[in-house]
Amino acid sequence: MAHTHKYLPNSCLLTDFYQFSMAQAWFNNQHHDKTAIFNLFFRRLPFNGNFVVAAGINDALLYIENFKFDEDSLSYLSPMFDKDFIDYLRNLKPQINIYGIEEGTIVFPHEPILRIEGPLALCQLLETPLLNIINFQSLIATKAARIRLAAGDKKLSDFGLRRAQGFDGAISASKAAYLGGIDTTSNLWAAKHFDIPLGGTIGHSFIMSYDKQLDAFNNFLDAKTNNRVLLLDTYLTPQGIKDAIIAFKRLHNYSAQTLAVRLDSGDLLALSRQTRSELDRAGLKHCMIIASGDLDEYSIQALNLAQAPIDIFGVGTRLICAHNDPALSGVYKLAAIKNGEKWRDTAKISDQLEKNTWPGRQALARVYGPQGPIFDHIFDQDLGCEHKAKHLQKLMFEQGHISQTPKSLLELKKQVHINLAEFPTEIRSLEKTSSYPVKFDQSLINKQIILRETL
Amino acid sequence: MAHTHKYLPNSCLLTDFYQFSMAQAWFNNQHHDKTAIFNLFFRRLPFNGNFVVAAGINDALLYIENFKFDEDSLSYLSPMFDKDFIDYLRNLKPQINIYGIEEGTIVFPHEPILRIEGPLALCQLLETPLLNIINFQSLIATKAARIRLAAGDKKLSDFGLRRAQGFDGAISASKAAYLGGIDTTSNLWAAKHFDIPLGGTIGHSFIMSYDKQLDAFNNFLDAKTNNRVLLLDTYLTPQGIKDAIIAFKRLHNYSAQTLAVRLDSGDLLALSRQTRSELDRAGLKHCMIIASGDLDEYSIQALNLAQAPIDIFGVGTRLICAHNDPALSGVYKLAAIKNGEKWRDTAKISDQLEKNTWPGRQALARVYGPQGPIFDHIFDQDLGCEHKAKHLQKLMFEQGHISQTPKSLLELKKQVHINLAEFPTEIRSLEKTSSYPVKFDQSLINKQIILRETL
Repeated sequence: MAHTHKYLPNSCLLTDFYQFSMAQAWFNNQHHDKTAIFNLFFRRLPFNGNFVVAAGINDALLYIENFKFDEDSLSYLSPMFDKDFIDYLRNLKPQINIYGIEEGTIVFPHEPILRIEGPLALCQLLETPLLNIINFQSLIATKAARIRLAAGDKKLSDFGLRRAQGFDGAISASKAAYLGGIDTTSNLWAAKHFDIPLGGTIGHSFIMSYDKQLDAFNNFLDAKTNNRVLLLDTYLTPQGIKDAIIAFKRLHNYSAQTLAVRLDSGDLLALSRQTRSELDRAGLKHCMIIASGDLDEYSIQALNLAQAPIDIFGVGTRLICAHNDPALSGVYKLAAIKNGEKWRDTAKISDQLEKNTWPGRQALARVYGPQGPIFDHIFDQDLGCEHKAKHLQKLMFEQGHISQTPKSLLELKKQVHINLAEFPTEIRSLEKTSSYPVKFDQSLINKQIILRETL
Repeated sequence: MAHTHKYLPNSCLLTDFYQFSMAQAWFNNQHHDKTAIFNLFFRRLPFNGNFVVAAGINDALLYIENFKFDEDSLSYLSPMFDKDFIDYLRNLKPQINIYGIEEGTIVFPHEPILRIEGPLALCQLLETPLLNIINFQSLIATKAARIRLAAGDKKLSDFGLRRAQGFDGAISASKAAYLGGIDTTSNLWAAKHFDIPLGGTIGHSFIMSYDKQLDAFNNFLDAKTNNRVLLLDTYLTPQGIKDAIIAFKRLHNYSAQTLAVRLDSGDLLALSRQTRSELDRAGLKHCMIIASGDLDEYSIQALNLAQAPIDIFGVGTRLICAHNDPALSGVYKLAAIKNGEKWRDTAKISDQLEKNTWPGRQALARVYGPQGPIFDHIFDQDLGCEHKAKHLQKLMFEQGHISQTPKSLLELKKQVHINLAEFPTEIRSLEKTSSYPVKFDQSLINKQIILRETL
């Protein structure tokens, strides 16, 4: 499989302490094996935008497939819990079913990204790692998709590793960024393990290490790497342009080579225009211009609107940690529990209205008009969808095993923007527009009303 | 060692592609083994605050001590680079010296957190992982220290795992958060591996899984966990308080037990007052109140100023990903290079003034007055410090090996707030105050002027 998550520590301890406190209490009064239904969803669109690209789903399924308690972890837990409960954990296997949407699907608030059905305590123990994986990867895939929308057909390179939140904050982000629309990564580890094309330039220290900038440029171009990019702003950029032109034209057969220059500071619009004009005058029309420096969807959109002659945007900090909105607030909520043969609906019905949840065995369908999706329908799986619609949830995990081989990361990546393009134009705006309609079926609304009335 | 970073994938590929392009070019013209000096520092204080708690240093040293090229990584690199260069990488050992400040030291913009001295190409390859580790852990330790300052002597619990940026985004953040001033974590993995006290409560699903809230409360308290916390806001909070009081008073010898309630939504000031008053009236004066729900240093400060009767603050999203400023912009800059026996100073001297760097072999000292630190002095190691001052840099890593056994995480944690308390009061303000003075020695300034003039 192209995108396993063997880079993640697959530990049963990557969860919150309280999951075990609750599981022990359920175990004590034989509540732990009651069949439960949990929905994983988010409430608020990030980046003040209009959609989310769901991601991390395949990694989450792999995490669950490998979920087991090792003796080292059990010996850490032992002093805090009953021996019977520790034995129960020792024998626990991930015997659950998961209905989920495909990695890369466009989703909206309250839509069930995953519906998990299985023994109550087991499902509860999985809450934290599922949220960690899906919240973060969905956030970054969404950010990347927004940057892709702003960049149009320009190339996008991920340079974020040094500013990411830890190594996994970089690795899983580089993967999600590729899914969402970035073309290359500078992160060698991610490139190797997820088969992402590499992108690279040159840093200031290379130039500073030589007495003269031109010596540095010549030496870099002479090295037999596939990377013929020169960085213009170590010293004054106009001199950088001059030296780069001399160095490029010294190359044998330079007009047949892939060449680029990089601008990493200053007024990127003015500098890219000046650079383009001087390169063209020197007969280097084919030399590309790479721009970087705290870029995000807004600055890229502005540069594109001004027709800045930039061919490749390098995005780092603002992509890799979703700088202006760094957490997706996904939650995992109990929606029903089976007492004997009878299901009981459950929901949080509290003082703060927006924190309330919807009960029932929720499924998701997308209703299409002649031009594309017109609304989504969240309905009760047991009652079915009243519309002619595309059902987005599939049984992805069955009794402990992944039941569908996922598509490759590249296939999924291609689908993201094909799917986004089907939606009404305003969904692809960087700013908040009118919301895409998500309709709760009346049967689900009624279930919440009934629960509210019994309080 | 209590705080190894064996949780990190220790791969030589956790770096940017361009590091290898540069190293190959240096290798080709025998530049790669020239002795170089790099400084690792940041330019801008995060959170619009007044200090940074430097962290990740011990993890960074461990990363370097274990740095080597495995055959799997080399075979990935091989098609892109010369065979001689791949052989050079195969035999590369981390033969460098690092002068650094102790983990947990309070630092300011432009101060050298690490000074790395060694072969040019080797030092360059280490840039990205060093920045990744130190940028993120320093950011979170600083955020935690700010939250600790706001919380005064109240207890602080880290609940952030589900909203962190990947598993490592959680693991290394929980460790840095503990260093910076958080008391407990819900992250079992981090608690086990770094010896952090566990903190945990109870989630809404536990209560929803029972027909009646009171049954859920009774069952949770009956479980033999060390965790006697009841959550009040699954349904309406006033009913939550009533049910919790009944459940607590049903316990044998309840007045001798550690009890708590948790508020997770709504107006925490009003609800905590109401809860406190009802608990007191019921003879449960010793029952603590835990509050959570998107808390950060600002909301905690406001609740404390209003004397909200809250004993423990649970901090999640806004701590674990440093929500309002999620990247520290640390950089790693070449400051000098040795040509034969002669050192040459290097600096970036470019159009964008704030991106320029300082040349020379920089060291750091802190000058104390009778009340505490009065300014910091960045001086040229070869010329020495002209002031009577505490030298903050130590030789921490010598010719491939860590040369000082680090203190335990708990010892370092205790030092952080002792050290912070020595500074003038305004440094501990959450808002930007007058900056703490950091003086560059005139000899370093002169070096930059000379470089500027030779452009």
